[in-house]
Amino acid sequence: MDALAIIKKKRDGQRLSRSELSFLIEGYTTKRIPDYQMSAFLMASQLRGMSPEETIVLTELMLKSGRVLDFGAESLRVIDKHSTGGVGDSVSMILAPIVGSCGVRIPMISGRALGHTGGTLDKLEAIPGLRTNLSISEIYQQIQDLGVVMIGATQEITPADRLLYALRDVTASVDFIPFITASILSKKLAEGLSGLVLDVKSGRGAFMTDSDQSRKLAETLVMVGEYFGMTTIALLTNMDQPLGRAIGNWLEVEESIECLKGQGSQELLELSLTLSGEMIALAGLADDPSEGMQIARDAVSSGRALDFFAKIVSAQGGDPKVITNPTLRMRSIEPVTVNLPLDIHGFVTDIDAYQIAEVANNLGAGRLVIDDEVDHEAGIVLHLSVGDRVTPGLPIASIFGRNADLIDASSQKILDAFQLSESPIKKPDLIIDRLTSKGWTSES
Amino acid sequence: MDALAIIKKKRDGQRLSRSELSFLIEGYTTKRIPDYQMSAFLMASQLRGMSPEETIVLTELMLKSGRVLDFGAESLRVIDKHSTGGVGDSVSMILAPIVGSCGVRIPMISGRALGHTGGTLDKLEAIPGLRTNLSISEIYQQIQDLGVVMIGATQEITPADRLLYALRDVTASVDFIPFITASILSKKLAEGLSGLVLDVKSGRGAFMTDSDQSRKLAETLVMVGEYFGMTTIALLTNMDQPLGRAIGNWLEVEESIECLKGQGSQELLELSLTLSGEMIALAGLADDPSEGMQIARDAVSSGRALDFFAKIVSAQGGDPKVITNPTLRMRSIEPVTVNLPLDIHGFVTDIDAYQIAEVANNLGAGRLVIDDEVDHEAGIVLHLSVGDRVTPGLPIASIFGRNADLIDASSQKILDAFQLSESPIKKPDLIIDRLTSKGWTSES
Repeated sequence: MDALAIIKKKRDGQRLSRSELSFLIEGYTTKRIPDYQMSAFLMASQLRGMSPEETIVLTELMLKSGRVLDFGAESLRVIDKHSTGGVGDSVSMILAPIVGSCGVRIPMISGRALGHTGGTLDKLEAIPGLRTNLSISEIYQQIQDLGVVMIGATQEITPADRLLYALRDVTASVDFIPFITASILSKKLAEGLSGLVLDVKSGRGAFMTDSDQSRKLAETLVMVGEYFGMTTIALLTNMDQPLGRAIGNWLEVEESIECLKGQGSQELLELSLTLSGEMIALAGLADDPSEGMQIARDAVSSGRALDFFAKIVSAQGGDPKVITNPTLRMRSIEPVTVNLPLDIHGFVTDIDAYQIAEVANNLGAGRLVIDDEVDHEAGIVLHLSVGDRVTPGLPIASIFGRNADLIDASSQKILDAFQLSESPIKKPDLIIDRLTSKGWTSES
Repeated sequence: MDALAIIKKKRDGQRLSRSELSFLIEGYTTKRIPDYQMSAFLMASQLRGMSPEETIVLTELMLKSGRVLDFGAESLRVIDKHSTGGVGDSVSMILAPIVGSCGVRIPMISGRALGHTGGTLDKLEAIPGLRTNLSISEIYQQIQDLGVVMIGATQEITPADRLLYALRDVTASVDFIPFITASILSKKLAEGLSGLVLDVKSGRGAFMTDSDQSRKLAETLVMVGEYFGMTTIALLTNMDQPLGRAIGNWLEVEESIECLKGQGSQELLELSLTLSGEMIALAGLADDPSEGMQIARDAVSSGRALDFFAKIVSAQGGDPKVITNPTLRMRSIEPVTVNLPLDIHGFVTDIDAYQIAEVANNLGAGRLVIDDEVDHEAGIVLHLSVGDRVTPGLPIASIFGRNADLIDASSQKILDAFQLSESPIKKPDLIIDRLTSKGWTSES
């Protein structure tokens, strides 16, 4: 067997066998197959397509390239959530404390911000002292002691995915459903989950802007997840507008704390509660997702969820006092307010999530390339949501940045991202559809 | 501009501008763009296609990546031939002396054997002492003094092609017409030619086995060559059977010498004379190709062509005495004869060129990978051609090899490559069609 013959086969539109895919993935992980052959294979696969069987085999090979966690008797309660990435999406930091406080076990491995979407890892690291690089034994210990761990990828888990992801990123092979599926699910399967809830975003601020493509991605993720015996549920959610009102790392931690108090963005809280309900039901701690959602709501209103967030932070070396009182984290940036012109009135009909994300990234909240440092304090807080009535002259957003010229330019771009209309509009539905192994809810 | 955006554009089926292609080719040649991005681009181009305009721009960029020869007042007589590669094809060593002795100037840059096809450079190096790595100033001097030079690629000419060819070879991007065209023509245009005759092979022993693809390649080569003001003529020729009877480096030198004496394989000689006639006419030394062919025939029958071969060899440091008397080159291999079984009679209807080439390569005549050393003496001489009557028990081939087991296995494979029939058949036409800027002969 040789790499060239396998690349040719895929180039010519043929399907690859398990042993051929294995030859490539193992060869690449062990550096026997060079980057330039792998990138030719990635491009050929994208343009010729991969079958469901090939996608399953690819996922399995990437999963088995590293260690797989096993929580033994606890496994049935080990559940996670994964989002395909959005703007102002701090769901993980709200949901993990909620479901953790309800008894679900979550070994949550998150990523960093790249492109226009944020990353939970960068947000967590805005909490003073908090460590995300735990060892495998620390992960096991914290799951046993507390039930929730929130960490970054380790060297030991799915090394093939880490290598392939870096190569895909620089060779235009990122947005191909079989690769996305194998990348997400190999990592989630390596967490030793019995169930997974997916938040598949669709819209301008999503990784996939096209709704058909988002549905197809959800279908492939559920099909492959279920194939491996992991109960997999996907919500298709709207990402045309930013989900929360805060875009920026520490700003989103603050908003998560607000939500855990039942305040803050109601869209963000509702989506977090919905996803939490799914997870609680998957863990067998509720009869169905709506009962699960009620349990989640109680965890918030009772204050248990917020207390649990402080426990997670504390367990990972962070300062739990900043969770109870966020003002204890000293700010080095004073916000600049963007006010609406005095001659404007009506209602907010749209806020372009992609444009808002670009402004926040330019301010330092995100990364343009993987080696960039993020500015934990930089970002934007929006003061209006879609559907809100506009009051002339009042604040529309606050900008957290360190460069006066950039802040000026950002103000105008934020105003441009808002669409207004004379007449009120209905808020768009946040949850578009729900997919289980039985199919889409909209079709049942 | 960045490489990733250009790769994405091609991946999505868009055409690239001159500045985008220039960014890639120049960036790759100067090592700013890494192999893995270039190979993704090559695969995307193959699967999405390249327009005629893109092919022309690519050719020009590769041409301009290095030095371009310029023979000044002599230019109108500077003509070359290029073959897409076949089995037992020693035309270059016959044609260059013929047309050189008639006054055509030929700065012939040849390649090495790779895969199943032979390479003129390896054959020439079977001549004791002969150098093929001449400097640019030596090339100019020898063209001025003698009129013909037969060399390998220099570092200074089309460096982009050299880098890209090596990458294409290991990433399944070899057999794509726009790349083949740009590779062949950038090198030929860099020779400063005013005219080019192409021998585009079609059939089992050719680089392109499919006749439609061979025609398409010929059409693209003529279109692009003419675009650059180089008169370009293509013959489409049969490569189902080996062209000559010798397959192997020194064996083909010997056969070339036979042909230059008017002996040896008549198919090989006739094709050499036909291509020579085209070149002589292109150089303005005959009114048309048929008059050119007559001039070429006279060069052979008068002995001028053979004398001229000795002069080329001598000018490049080789021993001209082995051209006049090939037995002076000492052999270290004694041939083993393959005889036909005694119960076989009839006529040879087919000889599989690809299979014969494989046997010769295994004996050491060719390369499996680029770093292999060739064995100049190894190979096969066939004693029968298609159409010949079979005499039971007489020799069908002689094998030149150094390993008894391999020779045994080769005997059987050579016998298997022959197809026999009870009734006589007509020899297949060697020249299938002819293409000029006015179109195919068969269609006129």
